[in-house]
Amino acid sequence: MLIITWLLVVDAKLEGPAVVTGSFPRAATDQTLLRRVNELSVLAALRGNEPRPLREVADATGLSWRSAQVVTEKLGAQGWLAETEADAGDKRMGRPARRYRFRAEVGYAVGLDVGPRQVRVIIADLAATVVSSQQVDVSPEDTADARLAIAEQVLRAALSAAGIQPDDVWAAALGTSGVVAPDGTITSVLLPGWTGLNPGTRLAAALPCPVAVVNDANLAALAERWRGFSAETMIYLLVGMRLGAGLVVGGSLHTGSGGAAGEIGMLRELGWHDAARRLAATPIDALTMSAEDSDLAAMRVFQAARDAHPAALAAVDRFAADVARGVAAMVLTVDPELVVLGGSFSHAADLLLPRLEALLAETCLHTPRLAASELGDNAVAYGALRLALDTVNQRMTSLDSATPLIPAAIRGY
Amino acid sequence: MLIITWLLVVDAKLEGPAVVTGSFPRAATDQTLLRRVNELSVLAALRGNEPRPLREVADATGLSWRSAQVVTEKLGAQGWLAETEADAGDKRMGRPARRYRFRAEVGYAVGLDVGPRQVRVIIADLAATVVSSQQVDVSPEDTADARLAIAEQVLRAALSAAGIQPDDVWAAALGTSGVVAPDGTITSVLLPGWTGLNPGTRLAAALPCPVAVVNDANLAALAERWRGFSAETMIYLLVGMRLGAGLVVGGSLHTGSGGAAGEIGMLRELGWHDAARRLAATPIDALTMSAEDSDLAAMRVFQAARDAHPAALAAVDRFAADVARGVAAMVLTVDPELVVLGGSFSHAADLLLPRLEALLAETCLHTPRLAASELGDNAVAYGALRLALDTVNQRMTSLDSATPLIPAAIRGY
Repeated sequence: MLIITWLLVVDAKLEGPAVVTGSFPRAATDQTLLRRVNELSVLAALRGNEPRPLREVADATGLSWRSAQVVTEKLGAQGWLAETEADAGDKRMGRPARRYRFRAEVGYAVGLDVGPRQVRVIIADLAATVVSSQQVDVSPEDTADARLAIAEQVLRAALSAAGIQPDDVWAAALGTSGVVAPDGTITSVLLPGWTGLNPGTRLAAALPCPVAVVNDANLAALAERWRGFSAETMIYLLVGMRLGAGLVVGGSLHTGSGGAAGEIGMLRELGWHDAARRLAATPIDALTMSAEDSDLAAMRVFQAARDAHPAALAAVDRFAADVARGVAAMVLTVDPELVVLGGSFSHAADLLLPRLEALLAETCLHTPRLAASELGDNAVAYGALRLALDTVNQRMTSLDSATPLIPAAIRGY
Repeated sequence: MLIITWLLVVDAKLEGPAVVTGSFPRAATDQTLLRRVNELSVLAALRGNEPRPLREVADATGLSWRSAQVVTEKLGAQGWLAETEADAGDKRMGRPARRYRFRAEVGYAVGLDVGPRQVRVIIADLAATVVSSQQVDVSPEDTADARLAIAEQVLRAALSAAGIQPDDVWAAALGTSGVVAPDGTITSVLLPGWTGLNPGTRLAAALPCPVAVVNDANLAALAERWRGFSAETMIYLLVGMRLGAGLVVGGSLHTGSGGAAGEIGMLRELGWHDAARRLAATPIDALTMSAEDSDLAAMRVFQAARDAHPAALAAVDRFAADVARGVAAMVLTVDPELVVLGGSFSHAADLLLPRLEALLAETCLHTPRLAASELGDNAVAYGALRLALDTVNQRMTSLDSATPLIPAAIRGY
């Protein structure tokens, strides 16, 4: 038995990796392989691009004009492509060139972030264009049922705002705190009632497609790589009242064999478990000491440090040292090119990054580049969206060669 | 521009991954792609297998009998294949079926381990069959020049014993202690004079092909995965008078962006830097205390622990706890399926594995499987050999499609 996996790298404007991979056993003939590769090439060349005339499709894919025409017409009949009106400028010689566009609206991908303080939903079409985005504040003390009910409500609102039927969503992913087992079941020390449940299956009434559940920091890492930072191996730090980490290794999300990658905070010697609490409890002034919201208290400590308040500076130094020990352990394990500082304390990157950098340089043989997140609170939802889009890509290309490449086969549930 | 990368997975008896990958821009025609894929399929089907008649080649590759014949004849003319005498049993109907074999002797791969106490060379043909293997003891105190001179000598002896000309070696890799920069330059705290040199280029007089230099623990991880343990993500622990670690992530060797992956020992809080020294210094009896060789002293401590000597048991407990802290940090970072205990202390796996297992279960959310190395002192050299064989595979498949697939093009220097 022989399996051929292909990987098409197309120079397209599509955000995210313009890469298509797939595999199938070569029991089929060479012609079947070629036909599928050609179809996927044309889709990749049009997806995420402006409408293109046949000549450009042929140029981008390396196909002959005639082959490009045959494939394009077939994909049109299958519902993937549509012809568009030619621009006035194209009417040379009295005859406009037909242009083809990828029907990005044929399906949608959904990214959800169900966090301690926020629930966020982002919906994009198949060309990765965001068509709807909604968020609602929640409380860390909410019960699991309350949190899930709000998630369902936000999801329905986001779908309805864009006029999308739940059936038109082809793939979804959900980021949340905790360790997520391969079957989607969560172990969380943070959210009440969250351990033992699978929030993906709990949303089935609102979303018939399967919902992949992944640790939030892991998804944030994926998002940072998608939307800005290029690094083969990187660590995303979720720094706020809780500390977490997500990894991209060799260009791919690395969640680990049991979903527990990046859980360095479990090693109590490193001091992650109470680093933020100790920072927020620094006695700066009456306001800080009486603050009920520890996030707010921490923000005041950072502000006081900027004003050179001695106790605040000492607290920030200690917090940075606590964070750096855990980061150093991860850096010394995977030796990444980049560490991205995200989470609610990323607003204090001006204070934290130089301290982390100096501390890492002391310990590590090869110090990675450090940078502040550019996605802020959107990182987890964007990462979930990227994963859902990747799932669609993966389905398109892993289709058995005997199955026609049609939207209904990719929708797949 | 469009690039097609292919990956052929062939069910062959070839040890190591029976996978071939390659890529080329599709400026060429579809026929050129198909031809190359077919050639590589036939090579993969014969390499590492017994000689096969055309019918079996066709079955294994999914090619028609006629296509298999055309491709096989072409590869024969290019020097990759030879016809063999048919067995007597094949002489049905008076006409023996011709069989083809992969000419594994067309090129060779070399794996070197240049360590503190040993220099080892393993040579295999292109079907990964070991044809020569030599080793010589060295001292940790040897100068760099002395160590390199011995390495060159062992290499020449291994080549000569198998009647192989240096020019017939297509790829080589060398494992050694220390952090190896992407250019092959070493930073070592262990071997005198080793920092700043590239041992690969220093062997150029004996071996004209490029020699990849990689950290020894990393190569050992690759070897354990090749020769026995199947795990997508695994950590190899080098446990002896020095502690080190190598990583396989997502099925591939992960050396990190600056060659510093697995260097968790740099985090002194974890206690790796003097764990083995403290173990070997345990006062058990007059013999242990006067031992000049600390490896020997450590071995006596392990033996005393097996005899329930209280001080030895306490020392082993403490050593296991020291090792476990560093392992836990790596496990909590990458969440591997498997941790393999290798190095000179792997003879004490009976004492160390149960202790490590219990300690990891306390700290880690998802405890990996633990196992003792089955390769012993050969792990680093085997890992180097595997890397050299992978280099040959990579060259075969990344050849520009306009260049004929001939041995001289793969030899490549």
